[in-house]
Amino acid sequence: MTNSSPASFGTVAIVGVGLIGGSLAAALKRRGVAKRILGVGRSRAKLQGAIDQGLIDDASQELKAAGEADLIVFCTPVERIVAGVNEVAPHCRQGTLITDAGSVKGSMCRKLAQGLPAGVSFIGSHPIAGSEKQGYEAAKADLFEQRTCVVTPVDGTPDSELQRLIRFWEGIGSRVVQLSPEEHDEILATTSHLPHLLASTLAATLEPGEEGFVGSGFRDTTRIAAGDAELWQGILLSNREAVLAAARVFDKKWKEFLQAVELGDRKRLTELLSEAQRIREKLNQ
Amino acid sequence: MTNSSPASFGTVAIVGVGLIGGSLAAALKRRGVAKRILGVGRSRAKLQGAIDQGLIDDASQELKAAGEADLIVFCTPVERIVAGVNEVAPHCRQGTLITDAGSVKGSMCRKLAQGLPAGVSFIGSHPIAGSEKQGYEAAKADLFEQRTCVVTPVDGTPDSELQRLIRFWEGIGSRVVQLSPEEHDEILATTSHLPHLLASTLAATLEPGEEGFVGSGFRDTTRIAAGDAELWQGILLSNREAVLAAARVFDKKWKEFLQAVELGDRKRLTELLSEAQRIREKLNQ
Repeated sequence: MTNSSPASFGTVAIVGVGLIGGSLAAALKRRGVAKRILGVGRSRAKLQGAIDQGLIDDASQELKAAGEADLIVFCTPVERIVAGVNEVAPHCRQGTLITDAGSVKGSMCRKLAQGLPAGVSFIGSHPIAGSEKQGYEAAKADLFEQRTCVVTPVDGTPDSELQRLIRFWEGIGSRVVQLSPEEHDEILATTSHLPHLLASTLAATLEPGEEGFVGSGFRDTTRIAAGDAELWQGILLSNREAVLAAARVFDKKWKEFLQAVELGDRKRLTELLSEAQRIREKLNQ
Repeated sequence: MTNSSPASFGTVAIVGVGLIGGSLAAALKRRGVAKRILGVGRSRAKLQGAIDQGLIDDASQELKAAGEADLIVFCTPVERIVAGVNEVAPHCRQGTLITDAGSVKGSMCRKLAQGLPAGVSFIGSHPIAGSEKQGYEAAKADLFEQRTCVVTPVDGTPDSELQRLIRFWEGIGSRVVQLSPEEHDEILATTSHLPHLLASTLAATLEPGEEGFVGSGFRDTTRIAAGDAELWQGILLSNREAVLAAARVFDKKWKEFLQAVELGDRKRLTELLSEAQRIREKLNQ
């Protein structure tokens, strides 16, 4: 996981130039990792905006245009990635590497493990970084710096392509970790998808008129609930089983906490809160 | 709720010079609201530190020393306030106003509604501001600025004393809102105590080894779980019934969210997430 000197990638195509795609473009520019960045998207106005902002060099509304790139990164909502990869792959040269930045890996990697043209590889990636903000306008060149990026090779993934992908993410300052797609989904269900579901539920618990009595605690705890509903619906349902499993683990703990409150059990409640405090404080280190 | 020109209070005693007490002292100094600030606490070293930091003018380890003040603010953990007020009140002059900064008001205000010496009043306060940090070292003079402070008069609270208390909090830049102690506790159960319980439970759900896969979402959602366990045990159990009622409202919503995930109901899940998104976005305005 050392930061090797950035590999130079020729043309990198970024499909979906929103917050993540735009930040990736900005990072590639700043670090000189790509010679040229091609943005692919559905909105001409947004692509033009991303060009004007200096994030991308060229743009196309045609997905197949990405076929000319050496590396293609899908930064679209998760449920559009499989179809997008299958659509662009026939237009790719031998040696083209395709990856993504989606939050769920299992079903995607299973579906893309086979059927791509010879010499075209897909390996899943998940840079663990984000924001409740949206759009290329909020792009940040340092969004991935010092952040974990999970890559999820499967049986049959060519090692040379995996190494290339690792150099790519390390080139923009990420710490790369390899996991199987299933391990990734289980862990992220707890560390990302469950928190989103809880934050949203808590926000939805607020009654009209209570807004004025909200402090920084409520604000922080619910911040991610401001994330795009459609996007998160896709993430949560793409990882449905692992999310439900994580929710069951949470529910068990939640019952313990509530029971300690119900019983007025000072000792037990302090123990539970202390354990949580200890775990949370470790995340600051 | 206009910011009237700061009333000048003579000596203000702050009992418990931690983050809240220290920040209050700093705010009173900066705004010139008090002529003199007396800090009362159990640790001589911490009191000396607060003097050295310029937060307080004098210090005492004797609670009865606070009796010389014109206004006394208890910034101790909630479960120590009632006993503290009863201990200091016999040492107070006529016209002394006693208040606090605790997060729970009902049982405290009921217990203190009667039995104080004639001419000594207690009115509950709750400045809705805080931090997961602890200690006077982390005190911030602007902690209460533009923040809501709830004051909770009861039947028999002298109006002149209530007005004095309102001028006090407005003097340090807070927006004062009046609620009954019971209303306060019900609302804060949802806006503060429930989030703490959820954040702690979520933090406790994290398994060893998953720390590296935690992004800003998990961090934000669990930030308040780093708060002092003993302090929060006291708050949660002091407001036990309202906290359990808020948890029941949450649980009902939680079941709706989980059911939408379980059923893979895209439309319903998007609706639920959108409602949460709308509510959360309103808090940014």
